[in-house]
Amino acid sequence: MKKTYYPYEEFREDLKILTQKIDKPFDVILGIARGGLCMAQMLGEFYDLREVYAINTMGYDGTVKRGGIEVFNIPRLKLGQRVLIVDDIVDSGDTLLEVLAVLEEQYSQLSFMTASLFYKKSARIEPDYWVKEATEWIEFFWSEDLKEERIDV
Amino acid sequence: MKKTYYPYEEFREDLKILTQKIDKPFDVILGIARGGLCMAQMLGEFYDLREVYAINTMGYDGTVKRGGIEVFNIPRLKLGQRVLIVDDIVDSGDTLLEVLAVLEEQYSQLSFMTASLFYKKSARIEPDYWVKEATEWIEFFWSEDLKEERIDV
Repeated sequence: MKKTYYPYEEFREDLKILTQKIDKPFDVILGIARGGLCMAQMLGEFYDLREVYAINTMGYDGTVKRGGIEVFNIPRLKLGQRVLIVDDIVDSGDTLLEVLAVLEEQYSQLSFMTASLFYKKSARIEPDYWVKEATEWIEFFWSEDLKEERIDV
Repeated sequence: MKKTYYPYEEFREDLKILTQKIDKPFDVILGIARGGLCMAQMLGEFYDLREVYAINTMGYDGTVKRGGIEVFNIPRLKLGQRVLIVDDIVDSGDTLLEVLAVLEEQYSQLSFMTASLFYKKSARIEPDYWVKEATEWIEFFWSEDLKEERIDV
């Protein structure tokens, strides 16, 4: 599969596009770790929201990703809050679906929206807002830029 | 106070320096939201740790920062884990001290280390690892780069 490097500059521009697409208000930004944390931080700054939270997921099986995804470190949310869930990429959609299911069960009276930078058309769920279709393997800057070989770039 | 813009490229290089300074192992990276989230994500990728968590703090008083800091969304940690707590800047040190106090109370048998990019010498606590002394007001890229006026930069 072809690999494409995704630099910070493109991330920044895509985040700007994302903010132009998001047309409904929200009170909380919830980043799915790890991929959604940088996004959550920058969007929190942009929207001047201090309620920027994280949520974690892990496959039941440590080696192969299967249907079973555990969702944990569920943040404290308050009645009436509207939550924007963010992740870097919605690939199979399994993670986002499970996160949504767990949150909607625990917080049945809250409303949730979803946003990602990349979205693969074959995913089982389409986020409410997304920027680019994922057609290749993306090497995100956050996983590449601290590697030795990039020191002199 | 003089303001200095802190671009992504400097952040990336400072993170590399930070990884060269960190000389003890750890199993979990815990970012203090919002400032420590990007760091946590990138360090998690670098160290190949999936246990990248967040923790939140809020002043009791919404307007002025006083001694009273509430720490919430405390992550699930396991016996024996060594936790690296990260934040962008240790300024007064109040936040980091309170986060440490709450974690050490709840998880008295775990060990915690602290790391930041910036450290102000007048802070009440010095992180175990830090990269630069903060002498000016820092305008971090994550709070500046989505603003309109930077679109054409």
